[in-house]
Amino acid sequence: MAATNPRTPPKPVMRDSLIAAAFRLFLERGYEQTTVDDIVTLAGVGRRSFFRYFPSKEDVVFPDHEQCLDDMTRFLAASADTDDPVVRVCDAARLVMRMYAENPTFSVQRYRLTREVAGLRTYELSVVWRYEKTLGDYLRTRWADRKDGTLRANVAAAAVVAAHNHALRHWLRSGGEGDPLEEVDRALEFVRGTWSPDAAAPPAGPDASAEGADDVVVVITKRSTPMWRVVREVESSLGEG
Amino acid sequence: MAATNPRTPPKPVMRDSLIAAAFRLFLERGYEQTTVDDIVTLAGVGRRSFFRYFPSKEDVVFPDHEQCLDDMTRFLAASADTDDPVVRVCDAARLVMRMYAENPTFSVQRYRLTREVAGLRTYELSVVWRYEKTLGDYLRTRWADRKDGTLRANVAAAAVVAAHNHALRHWLRSGGEGDPLEEVDRALEFVRGTWSPDAAAPPAGPDASAEGADDVVVVITKRSTPMWRVVREVESSLGEG
Repeated sequence: MAATNPRTPPKPVMRDSLIAAAFRLFLERGYEQTTVDDIVTLAGVGRRSFFRYFPSKEDVVFPDHEQCLDDMTRFLAASADTDDPVVRVCDAARLVMRMYAENPTFSVQRYRLTREVAGLRTYELSVVWRYEKTLGDYLRTRWADRKDGTLRANVAAAAVVAAHNHALRHWLRSGGEGDPLEEVDRALEFVRGTWSPDAAAPPAGPDASAEGADDVVVVITKRSTPMWRVVREVESSLGEG
Repeated sequence: MAATNPRTPPKPVMRDSLIAAAFRLFLERGYEQTTVDDIVTLAGVGRRSFFRYFPSKEDVVFPDHEQCLDDMTRFLAASADTDDPVVRVCDAARLVMRMYAENPTFSVQRYRLTREVAGLRTYELSVVWRYEKTLGDYLRTRWADRKDGTLRANVAAAAVVAAHNHALRHWLRSGGEGDPLEEVDRALEFVRGTWSPDAAAPPAGPDASAEGADDVVVVITKRSTPMWRVVREVESSLGEG
């Protein structure tokens, strides 16, 4: 067992020590059985230092979400009008997966802990909701001119979050095996294919303002051809105008 | 102010009295300032009666979700293999909207309360998550044979919940004006159009086993025709085989 550290380390180190001490105790004794006093004793710091970094015991379990939410907000705010909004929110969701992927052991431990403690599960739901809201806010702005823009934004944001969490959970359940960024790419590509403006849903108004927009396109297909292949063919014809 | 009821009413009435008393106090004094003792005093029953119906003060704010979750689970369990899974989960989501629509005044009051009390917001997130899980469980079973069936199920369940909540929030924010069932139909139709098996995504395998499946279909369209209209035309041609 690691000895407590008698000297006061610089702040980021202190924060990391508190996280390390907390997880050591959560895993050894259980989350409910560990108090903030236990954590600060093991980390060798005072109670006030703990609360300087973490508003509550729950927050030490999810120490990086605030930073990640900030990063996501800044990333989306830096978008260009020419960015595909769905591609952009998928890229924003990858920031979250990257955070988890940085420390697989910690992520897997936390996942197991969260499964066991109802309060942490609830806390996690509220974090997920904040990510979804951040993505939704961006999409609502980008689609403000669209008919059903708000509905579309809310549903697409939920779809992106669900796809991200699908890949994340699968990776965490496997114990952190394999490349979670590849998994999330696959899941997000499924969403992008569904929700990207040109893929499936009715646009708000006439979008085909390109030269030659009224040229006739003829599609010939067999009944057995899957619809996605028909769509792809038509899109590729339209795109080559 | 209503007098407390001195005789013991039959159980469902007692439950309703507790809900009515709780909401009267929540609105008058605020949620945090109201104790379970205050509620039982106003309702004229004992503390044990309260906890017979509601595990906690939070539960009296959302008294019908347990029943609604049960109804949803039963409704989905009673599905036929021939039911379109996406249509089925949309119908299941309508059960929730119907519950809210039964008592607009109560639903709007509760919505306002939930905006103000962080603990209730968290509670609500966990209820929403249970609905999403119930829908997702059903879709995962129905799509067990599909490539990406689990991903598709998770994303579609999230999309249905987001569309439902979009319509619900809009209706609640308006103060309960208009027909929420019409609103949710419109929102769910948007999701159904996106996620129903034939609409947009690649199927897992060859699905076109119908007679005459390989007949040639010709679609002639202008470049300016929105993609959704092209898809609709092709689908309607395929459907008439």
